[in-house]
Amino acid sequence: MTPPRGFPEAEFRDRTDRAQALMAKAGLSALLLTTEPEVRYYTGFLTRFWESPTRPWFVVIPASGAPIAVIPSIGAHLMGQTWLDDIRTWQAPDYDDDGIGLLAETLQEVTPPDARIGVADQMESHLRMPLADFQTLKQSLGARRITGDATITRRLRMVKSRAELAKITCAAQIADRAFDRVAEIARVGIPLARVFRDFQRLCLEGGADWVPYLAGASEAGGYGDVISPATEAPLAAGDVLMLDTGLVWDGYFCDFDRNFSLGAPSAAVTEGHGRLIEATQAGFQAAKPGARICELFHAMTDIVNPGGAGSDAGRLGHGVGMQLTEWPSIIAADKTVLAEGMVLTLEPGVTLPDGKIMVHEENIVIEAQGARFLSSPQDREIRVI
Amino acid sequence: MTPPRGFPEAEFRDRTDRAQALMAKAGLSALLLTTEPEVRYYTGFLTRFWESPTRPWFVVIPASGAPIAVIPSIGAHLMGQTWLDDIRTWQAPDYDDDGIGLLAETLQEVTPPDARIGVADQMESHLRMPLADFQTLKQSLGARRITGDATITRRLRMVKSRAELAKITCAAQIADRAFDRVAEIARVGIPLARVFRDFQRLCLEGGADWVPYLAGASEAGGYGDVISPATEAPLAAGDVLMLDTGLVWDGYFCDFDRNFSLGAPSAAVTEGHGRLIEATQAGFQAAKPGARICELFHAMTDIVNPGGAGSDAGRLGHGVGMQLTEWPSIIAADKTVLAEGMVLTLEPGVTLPDGKIMVHEENIVIEAQGARFLSSPQDREIRVI
Repeated sequence: MTPPRGFPEAEFRDRTDRAQALMAKAGLSALLLTTEPEVRYYTGFLTRFWESPTRPWFVVIPASGAPIAVIPSIGAHLMGQTWLDDIRTWQAPDYDDDGIGLLAETLQEVTPPDARIGVADQMESHLRMPLADFQTLKQSLGARRITGDATITRRLRMVKSRAELAKITCAAQIADRAFDRVAEIARVGIPLARVFRDFQRLCLEGGADWVPYLAGASEAGGYGDVISPATEAPLAAGDVLMLDTGLVWDGYFCDFDRNFSLGAPSAAVTEGHGRLIEATQAGFQAAKPGARICELFHAMTDIVNPGGAGSDAGRLGHGVGMQLTEWPSIIAADKTVLAEGMVLTLEPGVTLPDGKIMVHEENIVIEAQGARFLSSPQDREIRVI
Repeated sequence: MTPPRGFPEAEFRDRTDRAQALMAKAGLSALLLTTEPEVRYYTGFLTRFWESPTRPWFVVIPASGAPIAVIPSIGAHLMGQTWLDDIRTWQAPDYDDDGIGLLAETLQEVTPPDARIGVADQMESHLRMPLADFQTLKQSLGARRITGDATITRRLRMVKSRAELAKITCAAQIADRAFDRVAEIARVGIPLARVFRDFQRLCLEGGADWVPYLAGASEAGGYGDVISPATEAPLAAGDVLMLDTGLVWDGYFCDFDRNFSLGAPSAAVTEGHGRLIEATQAGFQAAKPGARICELFHAMTDIVNPGGAGSDAGRLGHGVGMQLTEWPSIIAADKTVLAEGMVLTLEPGVTLPDGKIMVHEENIVIEAQGARFLSSPQDREIRVI
């Protein structure tokens, strides 16, 4: 069943309230947001226009009250449909002052003269504005200081609301259906590039709003990496075809892959796939509220990489939601305590005897009693086309 | 005809040589690249994996010789297929040092102790790495100083090679064919969200690798903005349906839109569309080598916004290529001199008497004798469904 689009205003108020409580603890008088997921998380501003690098977009979360948008006028009409009332605009691009004067004024208006203003500065973040403009902004702020955001937005986003979970679930179900139809589009002799195009078509036919991410490969007995675009090389008997998609429904991603053997799989592929599923199940069993992310890592790596020194992938899964990949990473160093509402991918990889790799991925949500699959968990046996 | 994928190695060498000549003039000992188009421009590293914000990617252009990649090990296999030989990796994500130590070592190795190292810092750029890591990097570099990149990469990218032009042309032809099929998918009563999904499907069927950008609207007698995602509202008689797509073929975008009237258009819509086409043609006529971008702006704005104070869109077109929108912007302040090989969109907008807007967009390339359309230029009369 397709959930409703958007969120009730109460959800945005709640996110903002929780951020403001954490800001008070961290001694921050405001947050300055510059990236798509940050802006959307607090405002609901949903557009693919971020694909254009031309215009910066700013949202200020003051110590109390609703967020303030400081944005190019081209976005005023759409931002006007969100819960925000205070929308300040300039005609961008402006080669003399591309919003920095207006942003500085706004920050000065809503913060005390000795304010600390937080921007995301830790892993998985970046500042989406020109560096030279950031220098100008800092100079305009006088005694006010721009500092880290104490990972406030990252921490809030890690736990999904029911409405967010419904959207991710919808995305995962669309991907499940598309994977179930792969035999319609993939056969020996068809170029991989065509399979990629057709798989995206299946996702759209199944209800995806768009398909921001698709990677994969089709090579004899495994593949070399999991991030490659398609080539024109035709599928061949004995190939392992892997498709990994991050499709979006109403701004929320799923992220999982499926492996297919073109014809009967080799013993190495059969064994490898079995080990991937076993590792995924071990990660799933370990994923309970109160457990730590590193425990999921160890449960899986003991199976796919026993005694090993880690893999090129660098991790065995991650958060997923408004972005294809989100905090945390399933690595030995991650001590995050699992809590109800977290959505994760479990993504073990194996290296086969000949050096080829295989990767499997599922999506789960953490509930009171343990994990629940959002994608349809796969059998030990690799799918055969 | 579909051009070959990729580029000959000579093209990357040439781009690098030209960057290094400009670096010498600007007193830069190295460029540090952190974003997808920058990295791809010099290396050919093409992947949709940039959708994941987790991992930073670095490429260093030294004063001479080939670029050096400093990247997460998950990308080593794919980067190994480019012309680069020097590929340095770490297992990312690493919570203690996510590549900064390796990057600092590399920069120290290839630059003198008093080096100035350029990063993109002007409009349309951002630094794709965590701010805290950037601070650490700067501190690790001692007397070496990170400074602006003198817009070297932006300037080089503005003029397209023949191979780049072939890819953009291919993308534009795919979009043209998809727009010609809109009557198959758009009718009164069909929800706009379904039209969006089906239009992306048409683009894929026509050969698009993917469809990173689609925006549009369908409203009575015009629309409110040009950046909105689809709603579930059904198309109605009297609507103007606008679809604006940036689809990609082998890493290169086209970017143009089409307007459709559902049933006979009103007099205001007819007049507005005619004015848009007239303005586009005026921009096209003005687009010759040696002319300045501001002349294109004035040629178009005199028709769509005579005596006006500018529009919410903020510009009347822009560059297009590896990104949906690129330098320059067609605004009064832009003095860029047109040169052969530049690819631009002409994108005038009108405000109708009732406050609704309409926008039209075409793609052109600058050649020796003047501009040539890459998209099929539209008639004065709006298309009717």
